[in-house]
Amino acid sequence: MASVLRPSLRLRSAARLPVARSLSTTAHLRAGEKPYFPNEPSAPKVTTAIPGPNNKAATAELDKVFDVRSINMLTDYTKSTGNYISDLDGNLLLDVYAQIASIPVGYNNPHLQKVATSPEMTSSLINRPALGNFPSHNWAEVLNTGMLKVAPKGMNQVFTAMSGSDANETAYKAAFMYHRQLQRGGPEVDFTEEELLSTMKNQSPGSPQLSIMSFKSGFHGRLFGSLSTTRSKAIHKLDIPAFDWPQATFPQLKYPLEEHAQENAQEEKRALEEVERIIKEFHNPVAAVVVEPIQSEGGDNHASPAFFRGLREVTKRNNVLLIVDEVQTGVGATGKFWAHEHWDLPTPPDMVTFSKKAQTAGYYFGNPALRPNKPYRQFNTWMGDPSRALIFRGIIEEIERLNLVENTASTGLYLYAGLERLAKQYPEHLQNLRGKGQGTFIAWDTPKRDQFVATAKSVGVNIGGSGPNAVRLRPMLVFQKHHADILLESIEKIIKKL
Amino acid sequence: MASVLRPSLRLRSAARLPVARSLSTTAHLRAGEKPYFPNEPSAPKVTTAIPGPNNKAATAELDKVFDVRSINMLTDYTKSTGNYISDLDGNLLLDVYAQIASIPVGYNNPHLQKVATSPEMTSSLINRPALGNFPSHNWAEVLNTGMLKVAPKGMNQVFTAMSGSDANETAYKAAFMYHRQLQRGGPEVDFTEEELLSTMKNQSPGSPQLSIMSFKSGFHGRLFGSLSTTRSKAIHKLDIPAFDWPQATFPQLKYPLEEHAQENAQEEKRALEEVERIIKEFHNPVAAVVVEPIQSEGGDNHASPAFFRGLREVTKRNNVLLIVDEVQTGVGATGKFWAHEHWDLPTPPDMVTFSKKAQTAGYYFGNPALRPNKPYRQFNTWMGDPSRALIFRGIIEEIERLNLVENTASTGLYLYAGLERLAKQYPEHLQNLRGKGQGTFIAWDTPKRDQFVATAKSVGVNIGGSGPNAVRLRPMLVFQKHHADILLESIEKIIKKL
Repeated sequence: MASVLRPSLRLRSAARLPVARSLSTTAHLRAGEKPYFPNEPSAPKVTTAIPGPNNKAATAELDKVFDVRSINMLTDYTKSTGNYISDLDGNLLLDVYAQIASIPVGYNNPHLQKVATSPEMTSSLINRPALGNFPSHNWAEVLNTGMLKVAPKGMNQVFTAMSGSDANETAYKAAFMYHRQLQRGGPEVDFTEEELLSTMKNQSPGSPQLSIMSFKSGFHGRLFGSLSTTRSKAIHKLDIPAFDWPQATFPQLKYPLEEHAQENAQEEKRALEEVERIIKEFHNPVAAVVVEPIQSEGGDNHASPAFFRGLREVTKRNNVLLIVDEVQTGVGATGKFWAHEHWDLPTPPDMVTFSKKAQTAGYYFGNPALRPNKPYRQFNTWMGDPSRALIFRGIIEEIERLNLVENTASTGLYLYAGLERLAKQYPEHLQNLRGKGQGTFIAWDTPKRDQFVATAKSVGVNIGGSGPNAVRLRPMLVFQKHHADILLESIEKIIKKL
Repeated sequence: MASVLRPSLRLRSAARLPVARSLSTTAHLRAGEKPYFPNEPSAPKVTTAIPGPNNKAATAELDKVFDVRSINMLTDYTKSTGNYISDLDGNLLLDVYAQIASIPVGYNNPHLQKVATSPEMTSSLINRPALGNFPSHNWAEVLNTGMLKVAPKGMNQVFTAMSGSDANETAYKAAFMYHRQLQRGGPEVDFTEEELLSTMKNQSPGSPQLSIMSFKSGFHGRLFGSLSTTRSKAIHKLDIPAFDWPQATFPQLKYPLEEHAQENAQEEKRALEEVERIIKEFHNPVAAVVVEPIQSEGGDNHASPAFFRGLREVTKRNNVLLIVDEVQTGVGATGKFWAHEHWDLPTPPDMVTFSKKAQTAGYYFGNPALRPNKPYRQFNTWMGDPSRALIFRGIIEEIERLNLVENTASTGLYLYAGLERLAKQYPEHLQNLRGKGQGTFIAWDTPKRDQFVATAKSVGVNIGGSGPNAVRLRPMLVFQKHHADILLESIEKIIKKL
């Protein structure tokens, strides 16, 4: 039972650090803190080099039929619990990557187990509907008691989808149809013969030369439309034809934000001017701007609420829709249910897309004119998957029951404070710490990033990177202060191994 | 219990018709035929006008949050069994549309029920992996005992996806990467600085002006890349930007095929010449041709095995990949597991895409060079859904246990013979009957198509259309001769009501 990770190294000047205090307990559980998973391990366990022999053998077997070059580790989900992920060699890691930010309420969550074994789930698994044609009798109820219950303010409708990419692409399609409808003069104005003929040849005016504007370093998916708005890394885009769509420079802020308020405000002003200039001047008219609240895959780049309020103003002023891509930030991770709640917007975004922690996907909207003027324009066979909508509903119930958004907000502040101390202690390894007040959506830059992430496994932590040199934390919503203590001491161990 | 559909009308000259013979039995069950679903209703039941009051009320409720203009009927899946679909007013229809050709082994199939309630399913529902990074320990086994067991000849690898659209789009991405790799001189040749920089701006050469060729009337999905290859109906494409990609004319054959062999062969020769001319001349080089074995959504347009063999030759000769889109034709519906098995190809297609009856999606391939030269080029967070892969495995097991591909082949011949007789009897209502020897993948043209499809409900049948004026049959693989008898007599009833 003894973990190889029982603290042997102690933080220097430990006395004033919560992170250090925890080291004096064996189970890391802080006084008064009740664990969400009573059967969760008390600490990581590393028993072999990672990958160990079983993982290596299984990966070689899988390689015969499935590309394994991106494999991080083969996982035994039956042995994973709460915040802990298990490989095939008995190693049990604290998981602060969580399936690329996609597990909200812990592995083998008991409430989700109940949802997964309910008769309703069985029916939706084996009688999969073509949702646009034959929704089940209780589809309105599933939506209303599930994903619409947490719809962002000002939004009361949803188009369901299956992944972040197609959530964004269907939102883009809605934006293009809306844009052309305004140009035509309303929903009742019919298509011209020229439009009907030219679209069959993929030509304008039926298939118009319109665009979606995105930001440099943004990530919005990997299908053809979404990839055309993804600007984070060349490797995602190389060799794939792309639309001639514009990009603006995301504000390049200095961290910590509060120490550089004035020059950051200046930079955001510049960015907003660039956005407006592109909207006015780009040769393919801009139907919508898509933006992440925090650029996630592209390196955890932040902007201020003022910037986003400005973006809302600029887009409104120019009749351009604003799509907020909450695929990675949504569902509690930033200490609000939706990250854009941090902004105090005067009017809501036009569409908000979601996926990942929702375990399903889609976009919310409020304006009824975003329903296309005729049926079958926004349509596909499955339009999502009701079994995944039921899981999302279960996740929402669990978030409410355990107050997990609040937990993430307060655990995030606690974790951030610990990281600030580590950054002071190891300034060469923790630079540009960011995400204060953004729940556990925290990141920093480090010169040996890839080595940092690889070394993490050896001390019992599964951790991810983003952008060229950031370490990104994406723990689950059930990540608590005692997990933060383990993570903080693990980070120090990693640094000492570099 | 008495159905309003108990035969009151009898076919004229009934004596020589199997369809008429069945009318003398009450349950429609033919001698020696064992029903797959012992608890399946013996006949449709229509108790209200359709939509009835409950369906109308529930649709109005759903309309508040979800676009209902494409709704065919709200469905009570808990009361649907085998080939019969239930609405909310107690109506029970023989379903030969089957969720747009997506239900293979019947509603509430007992074997799938077992799969859906297995511990493996529960785990994959609540511990959803990022498959490219953290596949579960048994993912190779799930693939090998499931979707790879039925992989088309010559294909031993799979890239998993979530819908037909993204199956096609990931196949297109693979084709583009392969094409550029050949141009570069192999997988080891690295990207140039110019490519790395230009792709971040969506510009050539990094984002090259390459194309996918499709056929007029073809349907391949609704996201931006797939929609650029979809050519079936303007309504799917209007207002959405599209790539400048070419289309060839699909052979315009005359039916019945065997009566027009010579002129059809001539037309297919013309079509192949057009394909080759476009490949040689189109300004955006063609990386792949995508084709459906039977153009489904576009109107059930057929071509001969010789045409497809010719297409394989033309593409090979020009170093263009051939992607066979089996999203609608695959998984048994044509009396072969994959429709392209009808063609006797000299070399396999380069990729075969699937979805719908597979209840999951993806593309098969055999050539290892279709794995991109570096990891993370073909990647996304979920890369499919293991819970849906388990359902596909259960479907495969059920298909094998009950010999459902053979059933579909023989039931299809039986049904086709009955339709031929009806076509002789009602030549103005059943024209261009097609799909002989293609399982139950049968269609015909009818001048009052929309009225035909709408009237079908009143006689207890749920049926769909395709193209401008075709009725398409897409029954499940558990559709048997006694169901064919009910369908045949229902068609006659519909005709008499028109």
